Amino acid sequence: MKVNGTHYRSLWPRADGAIEIIDQRALPHAFATRTLRTEDDVIDAIRTMAVRGAPLIGVAAAYGLALAMRHDAGDPQLAAAHARLGASRPTAVNLRWALDRMRAALLPLAPSQRADAAWREATRIADEDVELNRAIGRHGAGLIERAHARTREPVNVLTHCNAGWIATVDFGTALSAIYQAHDAGIPVHVWVDETRPRSQGLLTAWELAAHGVPHTLIVDNAGGHLMQHGHVDLVLVGADRVSARGDVANKIGTYLKALAARDTGVPFYAAVPSPTIDWTIADGLAEIPIEERGGSEVREVSGRDAADRPATVRIADDSTRVSNPAFDVTPARLVTGIVTERGVVAPGELASLFPERKRAA
Amino acid sequence: MKVNGTHYRSLWPRADGAIEIIDQRALPHAFATRTLRTEDDVIDAIRTMAVRGAPLIGVAAAYGLALAMRHDAGDPQLAAAHARLGASRPTAVNLRWALDRMRAALLPLAPSQRADAAWREATRIADEDVELNRAIGRHGAGLIERAHARTREPVNVLTHCNAGWIATVDFGTALSAIYQAHDAGIPVHVWVDETRPRSQGLLTAWELAAHGVPHTLIVDNAGGHLMQHGHVDLVLVGADRVSARGDVANKIGTYLKALAARDTGVPFYAAVPSPTIDWTIADGLAEIPIEERGGSEVREVSGRDAADRPATVRIADDSTRVSNPAFDVTPARLVTGIVTERGVVAPGELASLFPERKRAA
Repeated sequence: MKVNGTHYRSLWPRADGAIEIIDQRALPHAFATRTLRTEDDVIDAIRTMAVRGAPLIGVAAAYGLALAMRHDAGDPQLAAAHARLGASRPTAVNLRWALDRMRAALLPLAPSQRADAAWREATRIADEDVELNRAIGRHGAGLIERAHARTREPVNVLTHCNAGWIATVDFGTALSAIYQAHDAGIPVHVWVDETRPRSQGLLTAWELAAHGVPHTLIVDNAGGHLMQHGHVDLVLVGADRVSARGDVANKIGTYLKALAARDTGVPFYAAVPSPTIDWTIADGLAEIPIEERGGSEVREVSGRDAADRPATVRIADDSTRVSNPAFDVTPARLVTGIVTERGVVAPGELASLFPERKRAA
Repeated sequence: MKVNGTHYRSLWPRADGAIEIIDQRALPHAFATRTLRTEDDVIDAIRTMAVRGAPLIGVAAAYGLALAMRHDAGDPQLAAAHARLGASRPTAVNLRWALDRMRAALLPLAPSQRADAAWREATRIADEDVELNRAIGRHGAGLIERAHARTREPVNVLTHCNAGWIATVDFGTALSAIYQAHDAGIPVHVWVDETRPRSQGLLTAWELAAHGVPHTLIVDNAGGHLMQHGHVDLVLVGADRVSARGDVANKIGTYLKALAARDTGVPFYAAVPSPTIDWTIADGLAEIPIEERGGSEVREVSGRDAADRPATVRIADDSTRVSNPAFDVTPARLVTGIVTERGVVAPGELASLFPERKRAA
């Protein structure tokens, strides 16, 4: 997608063999990129959320493994890099999926061949992500188009966090659907949840503004009220991990929006590329690990100061105890449908859409 | 309650005939008081939320009417001041209740007697508020005590916004219950919702810290996850207006917490002095007006900067459209009980607790 008229991916290989990322910690208050040259650089970027979004951190981890293979591509080094990168964040399953795929591709090869093969495989994963998101967007845009066909009014979509192009290699998941609907001429307006503590809604607003999609920023508290009064036609979010039965782990607060959607008769969808589905887990609430992040994310808010410079204020000091769970799990019973690259299905029908995975699990 | 060892009310008469308030816009990042000398001063303080909290703005409006009566206490002036003060904020019914009570007390009197009578009546309303809150706290503490008797563990209470002493003349509503339980030796821990956009949770954390009550600050998105995992024993909030059938208008986002409480089997209570009950309204969702406040509340966040000075950052500029509904309505079906000065009842039983009001309605 474009930033100030230039096409960007969120992450791309450099001519010198490193990878370059858009540093998402600075956005939208500043635009900066960052060069990652080593596995440690990648781990740091994932941990600190310089790269974020389940699909993107999977791709970043794949490149991280490729960078590690350049130094030593023996079996112990491959296992160690797989383990270290896999531990960089616990909730998104794409990380493990990408690393498992890399390991499966590399293990049969002689160590001397692994560095080049790893780079090619990481690049394939990145390119496939773009195609998955394009397909998800097509199916998701169909939901928006059908809502418009029913009402003949602009379709109001509420989204939480950022499931945009910046959370993936390109196009995004939930926002891919919105971009494609908008580009097809369907009038769509997006309610953008701020998404405390890290305010990723600002990334969503930044993306939507760049693409010319009408949107309104709201605090996380407002969505239920808007749904009660008929101002939301559908809720569409991304996901960090979806269990085989369709429980959806996504940014903290998603569950609250799903409850309001159910209470008010608004359909609730999660847009999910298949690498986000964890076929080894059924009960998402019991089995998906929820990352507890540092308290400074709750205590601090970043923006721009009176002189329009990037600035941070502390709303609470260290004497105030804080808790910061980063994700929650929306039970499948609250989910109307999962939007995948193969189509939209009820959560209970996920396995039938991916029969090859069902056999593998 | 005490601030740095000194007992304060949120609002008090000065020797020179003005009233003094704690300016809540600066809290908790700075402590300042402000003198209100005229009806216009009071209207401005209510509109800008220098005074806030349904019970407190009722009392402030009563004093505002008393200040107006000093200049001209004729019937037209009484009617005009009643109308102007009543329009300062739309959702909390305490404002209208206090003004109606003032007018009923003053209309039978000769204009020459009204200024003194108005001051006395406003003072009575303020003193009564303190007693109502003391009684609410006693009944609410009973809920916490019974939860502790069941579990023998510290009782985890989740609260939203600030229903503390600073939102009333003294003691608070929801927090009055927590203070009394804590003072009675019942171990209680409070999950404090940040409460964007104005972050009144910081006022709650400031109050609880001053009183020595254990508490943890969380973002508004986190409460559902905590309830799913058994970390909340009860939800206890204040209210800005409660309909005769028990629909609860309170700070935006309350409805989402009530939904999560219902979904997870956690009891949900609103602590409500009887002046907050609007006996003229049954369907709160259809009939309670919801204030839409300025966008700067969403766009700006205040705290302290790196040099520990009060500071504000803008998270979004004016090119980003925002919406800022200040309240939402939790339907009575999601409310376990209403804690009033006369005891705790199911929402449907409110009228039986106040038979004299039922006749009046």
